[in-house]
Amino acid sequence: MALIVQKFGGSSVGDAEKIKLVAKRVIETHRAGNQVVVVVSAMGDTTDDLLELANNVSDDPEATPRELDMLLTAGERISVALLSMAINSMGEKSRSFSGLQAGIITDSTYGNARIAEVTPDRVQEAIDKGEIAIVAGFQGFDPTSGDITTLGRGGSDTTAVALAAGLNADVCEIYSDVDGVYTADPRSVPRAKKIDSIDIESMLELAAAGAKILYIRAVEFARRHKVDLRVRSSFTDNPGTTIYSSGETMEESIVAGVAVDQSQAKITVVGIPDVPGKAAELFTVVAEAGINIDMIVQNVAVSNTKLSDISFTLLAEDLKKAIQALEAAKDHMGFASLQFDESIGKLSVVGSGMKTHSGVSATLFGALAKAGVNIEMISTSEIRISVITRSDQVIEAARVVHSAFGLDGDTEAVVHAGTGR
Amino acid sequence: MALIVQKFGGSSVGDAEKIKLVAKRVIETHRAGNQVVVVVSAMGDTTDDLLELANNVSDDPEATPRELDMLLTAGERISVALLSMAINSMGEKSRSFSGLQAGIITDSTYGNARIAEVTPDRVQEAIDKGEIAIVAGFQGFDPTSGDITTLGRGGSDTTAVALAAGLNADVCEIYSDVDGVYTADPRSVPRAKKIDSIDIESMLELAAAGAKILYIRAVEFARRHKVDLRVRSSFTDNPGTTIYSSGETMEESIVAGVAVDQSQAKITVVGIPDVPGKAAELFTVVAEAGINIDMIVQNVAVSNTKLSDISFTLLAEDLKKAIQALEAAKDHMGFASLQFDESIGKLSVVGSGMKTHSGVSATLFGALAKAGVNIEMISTSEIRISVITRSDQVIEAARVVHSAFGLDGDTEAVVHAGTGR
Repeated sequence: MALIVQKFGGSSVGDAEKIKLVAKRVIETHRAGNQVVVVVSAMGDTTDDLLELANNVSDDPEATPRELDMLLTAGERISVALLSMAINSMGEKSRSFSGLQAGIITDSTYGNARIAEVTPDRVQEAIDKGEIAIVAGFQGFDPTSGDITTLGRGGSDTTAVALAAGLNADVCEIYSDVDGVYTADPRSVPRAKKIDSIDIESMLELAAAGAKILYIRAVEFARRHKVDLRVRSSFTDNPGTTIYSSGETMEESIVAGVAVDQSQAKITVVGIPDVPGKAAELFTVVAEAGINIDMIVQNVAVSNTKLSDISFTLLAEDLKKAIQALEAAKDHMGFASLQFDESIGKLSVVGSGMKTHSGVSATLFGALAKAGVNIEMISTSEIRISVITRSDQVIEAARVVHSAFGLDGDTEAVVHAGTGR
Repeated sequence: MALIVQKFGGSSVGDAEKIKLVAKRVIETHRAGNQVVVVVSAMGDTTDDLLELANNVSDDPEATPRELDMLLTAGERISVALLSMAINSMGEKSRSFSGLQAGIITDSTYGNARIAEVTPDRVQEAIDKGEIAIVAGFQGFDPTSGDITTLGRGGSDTTAVALAAGLNADVCEIYSDVDGVYTADPRSVPRAKKIDSIDIESMLELAAAGAKILYIRAVEFARRHKVDLRVRSSFTDNPGTTIYSSGETMEESIVAGVAVDQSQAKITVVGIPDVPGKAAELFTVVAEAGINIDMIVQNVAVSNTKLSDISFTLLAEDLKKAIQALEAAKDHMGFASLQFDESIGKLSVVGSGMKTHSGVSATLFGALAKAGVNIEMISTSEIRISVITRSDQVIEAARVVHSAFGLDGDTEAVVHAGTGR
């Protein structure tokens, strides 16, 4: 008998009819002889509706993150209760649990809490009795304050993976409106193919490189706790994509997928004194403003000026905050000026096959050159190469590179819009 | 510095604008130098909307009362968070609490739990720091199961009174869309007057006799724990009605008020053997069906038949269940037949002055006789006389009796519709 954790996002439980469809699918899995734990997000627009109410009563709901968490966690309490009722009404025993009741213990960071511990005793007890356990995603409990917390974006994925780890589940299935992980985003690269299986390191790099299919925190959690994942569609019986964390050996293509990230911007700090410690000073200023940076390029100093330029990329939404922080430190740091560029795109190729195969960068750069795409910055990891290009070239670049690595499928992929929390 | 508990019903927090009005009122009370604990119900239609969802996913939501409680308690989590945000946004510190966090400990009766204990440590801590505490009404926590429970009809009133008792508050203010307790329901008796103050025993009898202003469980709780109540309107600054539990001595009219209850029905068990134990047998059958009975009349046995008739009143909604239970026991009990009557009305006059004044029943029966109202049953307590009349006569009877006891005001009362949970 396998223990399966199934996570359904907000669009999968968007109304009463969809909740009943999910109930049927869960019951099928249970009747096939599995123990089943289900994690659900808030129904469809619930979160947006609650946020709108918050904005109508408060000038600044973000100023009271504890209250915001109390508010938003009501959404999942509604969806778990309804799904449990639907399952019970269809003849299987089911029981719903809040994050607290499911033992999702977090730190005290309202709005973006980290899971510190998972003690799913009540969930275990329920499934041992043959019940289907329904757990509220996205929410946890901080024992220090006694307060409810939320896990931030992708929090329900994280809940599902953490429960799968805590219960030692055989697999954690993430259901949404897409039917698996693709070699590229089918909306940009129509010849993208669904991947049957992929290793967790490659999935992690793909998520970090901009693939929206899974939230990076959930994938990190799965890798750390060796939880196998499966990405499937709520609306089909397609087996989806399996993501192996457990060291399963697989024959795999060198490059598993191509990811595009158009959410980044670039800042160039011009004329910074080329003396030791200046780069550290720069990135300390940025870090203290709470901003993560991604790629960095330092130009060689022109010898007679002893000045260099440093470029780095960051989320475009952090651009304004970063410029303000740097301008405030300008006199102290002694640089000449700031330039910024919001028209960049990042293209990444990812695959654990890169560890043992050479020639990946040659193929990548060759394909880009042939397509007339200029490379502005490069960064690499053991299983990833990322390049920065002009924003308006990055989609075409992704198609060319996807072909060059032999990833193109025979037919065009069917595309659904994605959401989730 | 006084400690005031204020309870606002669903219609008082029906939308964002109303929540802001409640926030202003709470802040005014706080700035006047009081410690303030606020109990709120779910916003306006939230409960109905959630119940509709439950009925759409389940054939029988009542069959899963645990899940129904998980669902419905989401409503108050939303309203407490929003009210707390509104107060914070207006410049006062505020903190919201679920029933669990506020220490509302109950038994295990999902849907209609009884409060076993109140341990409002976190609420006390918040108000000691100068914060305004906002507590979710209607919900509690059963430590045996670790589950959330709800307190049934009028549960938010009960939460407020229980917190007032647990915190040793100076007064518990119940805000709704009516501005106090009236000598009669102004919708039936236009000359009804608002009562400035009333003792808790009279209030309890009025509530039991059908006055809808306060839920009887909350009033009972207040009497037992000596909590003074004040009934006020959310929408005016009218001081409302104070209900004294603390043995405050008051000059009071003999009759405090007149109540009408049209929700009752009458069953007559015809031809029951007039031997000892038969009445006990009858009422055991009814009690075992979970039905509360109100008034009882046993007709004198006709001597040569050794058979008597017993009539009793009960909630009309229990009528069918009672008849089924009695029919099932018919052969065993040996009665001849059952008659039932849904066209009855109950009129009660209530007042602690009755303890020391004679002549109340003479005035009551005289007024009814003059108005041509026939009395079918009578029951009395130390401070109440109730009579059963024809349903279509009871409103007119109430007006006549209201006048006869000198309760009529000079002007007609302004009437608002009432709701609440």
